[in-house]
Order: sequence, then C-alpha cells, then structure tokens
Amino acid sequence: MKIKATTLIALLLLTATLQLAAQRQNLNIPDIPGYVTLKCDFHSHTVFSDGLVWPTVRIGEAYRDGLDVIAITDHIEHSRHKDYIPIDHNAAWKITRDLASEYNIILVHGAEITRGMPPGHLNALFIENADSLVNPDFMKAIEAAVKQGAFIQYNHPGWKRQQPDGIPVLYPVHLELIAKGWLNGIEYYNSEEYYPLVLEMCQKNKLAIMGNSDIHIAISEKYPIAEYPHRPVTLVFAKERTSESVREALFAGRTAVWYGDTLAGFKEFTEPVFYNSIEVKAPHSSDDKTIWFEITNKSDIPFQLINGPEGAPEKITINARSSVIVKADIRFASIPLKYDVKNIITGNGQILSVEIKVPSEK
Amino acid sequence: MKIKATTLIALLLLTATLQLAAQRQNLNIPDIPGYVTLKCDFHSHTVFSDGLVWPTVRIGEAYRDGLDVIAITDHIEHSRHKDYIPIDHNAAWKITRDLASEYNIILVHGAEITRGMPPGHLNALFIENADSLVNPDFMKAIEAAVKQGAFIQYNHPGWKRQQPDGIPVLYPVHLELIAKGWLNGIEYYNSEEYYPLVLEMCQKNKLAIMGNSDIHIAISEKYPIAEYPHRPVTLVFAKERTSESVREALFAGRTAVWYGDTLAGFKEFTEPVFYNSIEVKAPHSSDDKTIWFEITNKSDIPFQLINGPEGAPEKITINARSSVIVKADIRFASIPLKYDVKNIITGNGQILSVEIKVPSEK
Amino acid sequence: MKIKATTLIALLLLTATLQLAAQRQNLNIPDIPGYVTLKCDFHSHTVFSDGLVWPTVRIGEAYRDGLDVIAITDHIEHSRHKDYIPIDHNAAWKITRDLASEYNIILVHGAEITRGMPPGHLNALFIENADSLVNPDFMKAIEAAVKQGAFIQYNHPGWKRQQPDGIPVLYPVHLELIAKGWLNGIEYYNSEEYYPLVLEMCQKNKLAIMGNSDIHIAISEKYPIAEYPHRPVTLVFAKERTSESVREALFAGRTAVWYGDTLAGFKEFTEPVFYNSIEVKAPHSSDDKTIWFEITNKSDIPFQLINGPEGAPEKITINARSSVIVKADIRFASIPLKYDVKNIITGNGQILSVEIKVPSEK
Amino acid sequence: MKIKATTLIALLLLTATLQLAAQRQNLNIPDIPGYVTLKCDFHSHTVFSDGLVWPTVRIGEAYRDGLDVIAITDHIEHSRHKDYIPIDHNAAWKITRDLASEYNIILVHGAEITRGMPPGHLNALFIENADSLVNPDFMKAIEAAVKQGAFIQYNHPGWKRQQPDGIPVLYPVHLELIAKGWLNGIEYYNSEEYYPLVLEMCQKNKLAIMGNSDIHIAISEKYPIAEYPHRPVTLVFAKERTSESVREALFAGRTAVWYGDTLAGFKEFTEPVFYNSIEVKAPHSSDDKTIWFEITNKSDIPFQLINGPEGAPEKITINARSSVIVKADIRFASIPLKYDVKNIITGNGQILSVEIKVPSEK
Repeated sequence: MKIKATTLIALLLLTATLQLAAQRQNLNIPDIPGYVTLKCDFHSHTVFSDGLVWPTVRIGEAYRDGLDVIAITDHIEHSRHKDYIPIDHNAAWKITRDLASEYNIILVHGAEITRGMPPGHLNALFIENADSLVNPDFMKAIEAAVKQGAFIQYNHPGWKRQQPDGIPVLYPVHLELIAKGWLNGIEYYNSEEYYPLVLEMCQKNKLAIMGNSDIHIAISEKYPIAEYPHRPVTLVFAKERTSESVREALFAGRTAVWYGDTLAGFKEFTEPVFYNSIEVKAPHSSDDKTIWFEITNKSDIPFQLINGPEGAPEKITINARSSVIVKADIRFASIPLKYDVKNIITGNGQILSVEIKVPSEK
Repeated sequence: MKIKATTLIALLLLTATLQLAAQRQNLNIPDIPGYVTLKCDFHSHTVFSDGLVWPTVRIGEAYRDGLDVIAITDHIEHSRHKDYIPIDHNAAWKITRDLASEYNIILVHGAEITRGMPPGHLNALFIENADSLVNPDFMKAIEAAVKQGAFIQYNHPGWKRQQPDGIPVLYPVHLELIAKGWLNGIEYYNSEEYYPLVLEMCQKNKLAIMGNSDIHIAISEKYPIAEYPHRPVTLVFAKERTSESVREALFAGRTAVWYGDTLAGFKEFTEPVFYNSIEVKAPHSSDDKTIWFEITNKSDIPFQLINGPEGAPEKITINARSSVIVKADIRFASIPLKYDVKNIITGNGQILSVEIKVPSEK
Repeated sequence: MKIKATTLIALLLLTATLQLAAQRQNLNIPDIPGYVTLKCDFHSHTVFSDGLVWPTVRIGEAYRDGLDVIAITDHIEHSRHKDYIPIDHNAAWKITRDLASEYNIILVHGAEITRGMPPGHLNALFIENADSLVNPDFMKAIEAAVKQGAFIQYNHPGWKRQQPDGIPVLYPVHLELIAKGWLNGIEYYNSEEYYPLVLEMCQKNKLAIMGNSDIHIAISEKYPIAEYPHRPVTLVFAKERTSESVREALFAGRTAVWYGDTLAGFKEFTEPVFYNSIEVKAPHSSDDKTIWFEITNKSDIPFQLINGPEGAPEKITINARSSVIVKADIRFASIPLKYDVKNIITGNGQILSVEIKVPSEK
Repeated sequence: MKIKATTLIALLLLTATLQLAAQRQNLNIPDIPGYVTLKCDFHSHTVFSDGLVWPTVRIGEAYRDGLDVIAITDHIEHSRHKDYIPIDHNAAWKITRDLASEYNIILVHGAEITRGMPPGHLNALFIENADSLVNPDFMKAIEAAVKQGAFIQYNHPGWKRQQPDGIPVLYPVHLELIAKGWLNGIEYYNSEEYYPLVLEMCQKNKLAIMGNSDIHIAISEKYPIAEYPHRPVTLVFAKERTSESVREALFAGRTAVWYGDTLAGFKEFTEPVFYNSIEVKAPHSSDDKTIWFEITNKSDIPFQLINGPEGAPEKITINARSSVIVKADIRFASIPLKYDVKNIITGNGQILSVEIKVPSEK
C-alpha cells in the first residue's frame, strides 16, 4: 500500500534510548560535617597499557557516572599494544586533561607500577611525569613518584594471580614502604573482589582504604547504563572539591569504599554518612500501644538494618531514595531503636551499630 | 557489633550483572526459502581512525549481539589519533582476524574511503590490503579496491554534514561508478538516520540496500546490554554462512535492513521474512458469528498490522516473541484477513501488504 | 551427582526482586514558595464498581508510588460485579481508611456520578456518604454531594466513547454547574488521554486542572514497578499536608498535572516548579570566548529546553536527577540565556519561557 | 511562547509501555519425546477468599505469562471478605470459564481445603462443584472432591506458620490419604519457598511434584512485567494440550517444577528437557591441540554446567536463549564432555549429570 510521502528526506531518529549527549547522573551520597563527599575512581586503563578504550572515553564515563575524580593509571611495565602504539606513559594524561576541565572532572595524573609479588602492583597518584617511574629498581621507581608528591596505593593485595590463597599480606617490602611513608593506601575493593582484612591493615598502619574499578573495557559494558550496580568508588571526604583537597584527604585517610549495596570504612566516616542519609519522621499515627512512623533514605545506598529490639521489626530494609513505615511499640516514642546496619562494614568482622530516634513532634 | 569472621580471604563477587563472559544472544530472524538470514554490520571504527575502542572490542560486541558478520572500516584519509598511533590501515584486520575465527564471526576486511561531497564516504568491503586505497585520485582509490574484488558501499548519502538538505543524491561521480559496476550498495540506514529515497535508488540501479551502525564508541554505550533497541543491521540472505556467500549475496542485492522496530527491504525478501516469522493457529474457540484464533510471532521483530478489514481488529500489534488472540467475524474462517504491515517498508511510500489465513484444523 | 545435603528444610528465597515489603519511592518534585507540593490521584476504582482489585490494594500502590493523596471513586450508577458483590457505595472507604492512616496516605472519600453525555462522568471528592448521591435526577445528585462539601471534577471530557470527536466541550449543564459553583475542576489528563483545550477552559472559568490515573486494574500492570513512566498525577500546592489543605488548594485552583515527561499547568505554578528544580552553577571553566557551566535538575521531571539563543545550544535536555554541561558564549556570563521548555505546557498552544542565569561566583 | 495549535483534540498516547493489549509471551521450554510440555499454575486466589483481585485478572495474567493451564483455588474455609462479598465457592469458576475459553487457557476448577496442621492445606483440582467440599469432617471433604474426580495436592508442606521447623512431613492423615489414593501430588515449591525433601517423598509414594505461585496479589506486582523472574510453574508433560490430558499426566506423575533459574524433577523428565533445549555445533575452529565449538540454549532456562573435565572449562553458564563458545582439548572432538547441571535438581541432594557430545561435521 501507499503511505504518505512526507518522509523523503533524511530523518534523525531522536529517541530517549539513542540520545547519548552526556547526561550526568546525580549521585546521592551526603556530605559529612566539615567535608564534602567526593566520588572517585583511582584506577583505570586505556589502550596505552592493556585497556581497550581511548583515554577520552574515561572522562565521558566519569561524567555520566556522577564521579568527581578519575585517575587513569596505565601500567608502566605492561604495554600490551606496543606493536601498534608507541609507548608513552603520559599519553592518557596529555590527551584528556583539557576535556576533563571542560567536564569539571578532577583528573589525577597516575600510573601503575607493575611488578611480581611482592611488591605486586602499586598506583602512583598525583604524579607529574610518568616517565620518571620507569626504573628496574622498584624502590627507585617509588622514590621517583614520591619525589613528585605521589600518593602510593597498593592495588588488589589479594588478587589470586599474584597471591594464590587470596589473603592480602603486607610483605617486608610493603612494611619498608610504610615505614618511609611511601605507602599511603590499600585497595579494599578492586574490580569484582574485596579483601576484608584490608580494613584492619589500614587502621593499624594509618593508611587510606581504597575501592576502584580497575576498568579495562568500556564502563557501559560492565555496569550497564541506568542500571544498578554502579561502579565501585572511593568516597573521599575532602575540605573542598579541588585536586589538592582530594590529595590532602587521601594522605589523611579520610575515605570509605562504596561497592554494590555495601559501604565499607571506619566508623568515623560511615556513621555520619548513615545519619545524614536518613530522616526519621515523628509518628503519623499511634494508639495506646503502637506508633507508626516513617524513615526516609535520601541516599543511593540501600540500608539493611538488622538485630532490631523486641517490639519493633527485627529487620528493616530501606531502599535507595525510598521510605518505609515502621510499626513499633509505643515505648519507642521516647527511647531509640537500636539496630546494626548489615551493609556498612566498619572493620574486620564489624558492622555499624546505629540508633533510630523517633522525634516527638512533626 | 561483631560478625562471623568467615570472610577473611579475597572473595570473588559473581553476580549475574557482573558476569561478562561472552554470552551470545540468539537473534530470531527466520531464514527464507533458499537462503540463510545473516545479521551483519558493515560499518564500524576503532582507534586506528576516529573510533574510541581497540579493534578486538568489535569482535566481542558482534558475538554478544548475535551477529554473523562484521566489517571494521577505519577511515583511510582520517586518522584522528595519528599523533599517538602510527597510521596502519590494515591494523584492525591483523589484530582481529584470529579472534574472529575463535568466535565464529565472519570478519570482512574493509576500509572507508573518506572524501568531501561528492563523492562523500564509501566503504570498500572484502578487500585484501587497505594500503592500496591510499590515493589522492578518488577513482584510482576505488579502482584499487575493485581490483581486490571489493564491494563498494556509498555511506550515509543524506548526512547533513555533507548534504545539508538531507536528501540523498546520486551525483555524476556516483552514476559513473554505477555505470562501471564500481558502486554496489547504498546505506539506507546509518547510525541514527535513515534515508527513505535510498530504497528507490537501489531498486532503479540494482544495488543492495544497507543498514549499519557506523559505531565509533562502545556498542554497550549506545545500545545498552540486554535492552532494546538492538544496533541497526543489514540482513543478508546468503546461500550459506560463509564469507564468500555473503559477498555473493551482497553483489546480488539480497539484503534488507533491520533497525529499531522497522524492517526495510524489497518485497521479495521482506515478505518471506514476515510469513516465516508468523504462525497462525486454527480457531480455538468459535460460535455462530465469531472465531477466536491466535497469531504467534516467533521473531525478534514486532509487527504492526494496520488497515484491517471490517469484522476484524483494525490494528493488531504482535510483539517480538509473543502471541495475540484475534477475535474476528466467522467469515474469516474461510477467507484471509488483509492487512498492511506498518513497520515493513518496501519502497518509497510503500509498506508490505499481507494476508492472514486462518487454518481450518488444529 | 550428589550435592551437600544442607538444604533439607524449607528455604525462604529472599531476593531483591521478590521482596515486596512496601518501599515508598521518594518522588522529587520541589515545593514552591508558600506551599508544599503534594502528589495526588483523584480517580481510581475497585471491585465495588468496575475495578478489578480489592480496595486495600489502592493504598499499598499509592504508598509505593510516593503519592500523598488518593481518592477511590467507584461509580455510583455502574456496579459491574453486582451479581456477586452487593452494592455498597461506601465500601471502599470503610475498608481502607484505617490502612490509609497507617500508611500516612491522605484518603479522600469520593464517588463517580456516571451519566450519559451530557453531563457525562463527574467525581464528587471529599464527600461523607456516597449513598446520598444515588438519585436519578443528576442535579439533585450533585447537590447532595455539594451539601457534604464536595469538590466536583468533570472527568475525561474528551473521552471518545462519550464525545466522539474528542473535543472537550462545556455543555449547558456544565455551565449551569459552574454558575452555581458546583463544578470545580476538569480532567486535563485521564488514564492515557489528554485534552489540550481544558487548560483554557479552566483558566476562563477559574477551575482546577486535574490529571488522574482512573485506574481499574492493578497499578503495577499498567506502570511496571521501578520503571518509567509513573502514573499521571495531580500536583496540589497546599498550605500543609492535610486533607483540609488539599481541599482548600483544589477549590483555589492551585494544581498542575504531571504525566509521562510532561508538566501542564498555569505559569503561576509551573514556573516555580521549574526554577526550584534547577540549579545553575558558576562556570567551572572558561577562556576568552567561552564559558562551560553545569545545570543540575534535582527533580524527577526531565526538562527539554528549546529555542536557545545564538552562541548557546539550541536545545538542552536535562534528564530527571541529572546534570548537563553547557558550553556558551562568554557574554552569557553576564546576561541570561532565554529558552522555552518544550514539556511544560502553560496554556492552549503555550509553553513556559524561562531564563537561565549563570552565577558569577562558585 | 506560542506553539502550533494542532493539538486541540483529545490525543491518545500510544506508547509501548502503556499499551496493555494482551500480548502473550512465548515461553520456550521444549516438548519431550511423546509429550507436550505445558506450563501450569495450580494454585491462585481471588477476592472470593483472601486474594486481592477479581477472578478475570487471573486469566489475563496467565495469558500474558505464556501459561497453558491455570487453577483458581479459593479457600473453602477462609473467606476474608465475607462482610462485603457473600460466600460462593464456585464464583471464580463461573466468572472466568468463558473468558478462559476465549484466551485458550485451560481452566481447572479448584478449591483449597484449608485446615490446621495436620492435615494443613490441600487443593482439590478438577472438581465440579466446590460447595460439596464444605464439610467439618476433613476426610469427608476430601472424599467429596475425590468423588468428583479430583486430583488432591498437599500444599506448602513446610510452611513455617503451620510447620514451625520448616521440615515437610507426611503425617498419619497424609499416609492414610495416600493409601486410599486420595493424595496425588505435593508442592515442592510454593510462592517463595521450596522444600527439598518433597522430591524424595514424591518418588517413594509415586506422587506428582508440584510448583505454584499461590498468588494473592496481582502477578505484575510480584513478578514485574517483562522482567525476570517468571512466576513458579508446574511443567506438565501431557499427551496433548487438553484438560483431560493434563489431569491424566498429573495422576501419572509426569511433572517438573520451574522456579527462578531452577528446574526440579525426576531425571526421566528433566533430562530430555535439557537435551531438547541444547544444541551443540560442530567445531567451527580447531588446531592440533584445541577445538572451539558453540553450544546454543534455545530455552528460557539458563543452564549452569559445573564439574567439567580436565582440558575443558570447569564451569559453563549458558543463559536463556543464548549461546557460548567453548574452547576444549582436541580429544573432546571424539569423546563427550561430562558435566553436572547445577540448577537441575533431580532428587534430594542430586543434580542432573549430562554429556555434551561435539558432532564431527557441520
């Protein structure tokens, strides 16, 4: 059959699904007293080592994912595509820094010093020239980074390819680095793995706990657009949203890790994240024995409260950006409900304990 | 609170979402009498011209997307990353051919000859050496490709950057190519645009109609994994699933284009795709006046039937891999229901007319 | 093969997907100066007229959908299931009011007076006893409602079953009602239809514009859980979140309608919704000629800015809860960018015009 | 600003998401030799007991979900809404049987005999009149059902409300029923729970294993439309697609249960389902040491192969309607690869063992 011939010229199909103009997803993780909460990924790769994307891709992805900070950390000692791409350890930095500025992404100049275990792989962050890190002597390579002011991160310490039992260990070389102040953070989370012992290691040695994607492919292939889960990130509690503040916060150990549904970090930081995410309303309904009140979670982290008291729900799950009604004994109108938060890890074998206080007036 | 310390070692989080082992989606487009229906993308880019991914990415994407054939067609005259990557027009081919073989993807060696309009951009497909196409004389470049046995495709003829009014035109240079047999197909669909007049152009000049992604970024960024819509593809009706058969079918013009919900192509090919997708069942219920029968759509293309006869639904939409119950006048137990298929374009201002015949026995 | 016999007892499969404990989605539509913005659905049905769900279902759905106010408005004159369910026009109200209180949903007692056209269908909202509305004399039925303090809403005035040309009309009976103050609002949006002329009608006659789901089936069947689009709602700009305030705001005409991606309502209300949704940041980057700045949309309504000035993007789309970077001529550091908002309808053939002012300091 | 006044009349917004015309999802579970595989849900409720939807809803849901058979089994002894709805144990049957016929759904007349434990809850399926089951004497109630030809199903035997330890038990009353031939099937899966011991119970006593939704709310609220997971179903291997054949197959014990990603049932039935779902292709690539071949899963059940042999992947997951490439030692060109299928449960502590034979020619 004949249809109307109104469509003779080129038509641009503009559907929501196809529209890929960079839209930045607003990530909702609250600031904490005294600090802004920045979402950061300090570990990623490009075609300049063994990654599969051009460096500019990492900036667009960081913008879309709602990140504040990104480090591209191509391997110094591993240039998989060198038959086709001449080695240039600063290439990703040179190619992306202007674009990062346009997108208001704080770009951290980085590189991954890549050795057998020990010492394994370490990221040098906030460097000025990656070429200086090319040195067969590991300690010299680290020293060159430190001289540039680098923050040194020990990557995936329980990675089975290098640590077959999966148990992260601080080898003598790491202890030596720590003693010199040349090791400043350890990845608690990398790509798809987490290493529970790292929290304790960081606490004992006053290091920052880190969580990063270590992404080699396109982010959209591993974390489908507009779908949960987000990529793992290091939350940095910084004095302000500047590169220098991020660096200061890292050296001060003011970090936590958010991956999947879980938040991991010292109580000092995760507790205010929880309390600033949650809003408890005065009872909207009550009788002699019972109150009904609402808890709202304004953040993108769901919270799983467990071990509730008698006369209240044993478990309460509050999804991201959601609210729940709680029905509880009337005595909780005046005393707080104590819960543990199953998905906030504060130490080895430790989860956060919280108090839900029901306000008396609306 | 204390939790059980059973999680001291590295844990691999294996969730469905994170699992990225290559799973190939079974695309359901039926074969037609005498031919297998191959899903093909004859236009894509990598970091070796102005694309943003490493060539191997294109093979993994093609496998996941259920494609049979992929061509990587980096620009001959446009090497955006040449400050960092030395020009090598055959690089993508060399890097991917073994991987394509492992993934059972038919890899077509290609290149995009990239000029101002006219002649614009043309893909040379099934070439042997892209270096021979480097020639300031356009006709000589095409000739070099043709000598290698190339199929020449005129790309995005209504692209507004080169053709501001969006109306695809065959310029004298194109007519000259056609006269010599050096132009063999035209893109009806490219990336996000379609050019309705191309169907007529191809019919008149006996050329193959083509539809391709012209992808520069990661496929997963533009066509989110496991979500509709799929990337645009050229359906090739080939004698068998081999590279030589694909080439033969292209030169013979046995193609159609599937993009979004729409199928475009000559009636000769789209009609059997429709009839082989659809199964009409005998009435499962009836009374004096009415029959109820079911139509099943086994394909991944939804069909929108319109202009139905009196005594039957005016419109019937049958989603991909779905069925619908149709309630119709009893006379349709013996005579066919005539419909037009809104989303099967067979020519300029033409859509496919079909007959739904209700079988008499179950 | 043998597997470990640890699973001998009943296992409760607790997966995120299956968990249906009531989680309330936080809807993000900002308050406007002087008023809280309440999300309301004033039109729904249950098995007590021609709906297909038990009344309590409507309360759980309203909670999950993030609504503040729901009216169940079963037909007075149409009890489809009366062979099985004795007619009780107040049944839904009696069955749900305690549950609504527990869920902190403001439940409006309502009923739908259901006649041929004219007058068609009218909802009586904020009634006390639906039985009084049973009266063959239409005017008497309305009068009975009005005596109870009812707000009267004219439903789906362009519904083709009653108004075959789809053009909403105020018939003499409606004008008579308006003259008496017995008609107080008109549905601009109902179920899947909208009636553009209603905005003008409401403006001229000082009536509230309304948008409702008129849902008969389960909400989850029509608006899949956790997926766009949300059900259509009437936004009510109330002095506080109480039933009496909602009623006051309705009579005062302080409403707008949100359906799909579109906001419809008088400029007085939609303009502050827009400005309170949007945050424009100071330029984060600039050079001699250009500024780059970010616009954040905190709301759940995407905004489509069109008709931009020279030296700035012609179109800017800001998705719900997203941000975009705008690149514009340096002169916009000191003068506002004028746009029209394509998806904010303020009158018949009118859309909202806005000014984007870029602040000078961070 | 002014927009074109072309939109003065009522507009019907026809979007894919809003379109709710009944589209039946084609479920892909293969037939097995000698039998058609029917997808059935033998346990559901409506407002006529303690359900929350009108009976016709169950027919539309069954059609959309791709089911062949549905039983509505309102409680005989529990009519929660009796203050508003007079008790009528046959109401759902009377209301839905014509609609089921139009939708080509096999409707099974059923009822749930609802007692304390023991005997607990039992469904009588294929009855003629539910009123006869009203009898304070449990055995008499069962006898009345059996006289009508009923198949008796013991529901959720490990339901903690009635069986606090969750361990399903056959009490003396059940053994008495079995001895008389008055107990014919047991639910292995109900709603969100499964009871591993039931497989053994059914094997020993020659009963049918059953899996059902026991749905009370709308299906779309618990199993979001177009999203995984589907509702749990009993697969019935019937001689043909008729009510009588379903009944015959149930009494003969030819069933399996499909819930989430898991298939449970005796090897006799689950093994041919596996082999008829899977297609193994001849190697498409090989060298001296290695073959590459593809396995295609045509069904909607993903398969998780584990315990693979040396020289082949230890684990292979093949998603629903997907394919994977397997790389294996050349010796597997002539000998089969042995795997266990983690998600096919064939008995208590038993999973299915399978052999993957790679054909030698394409």
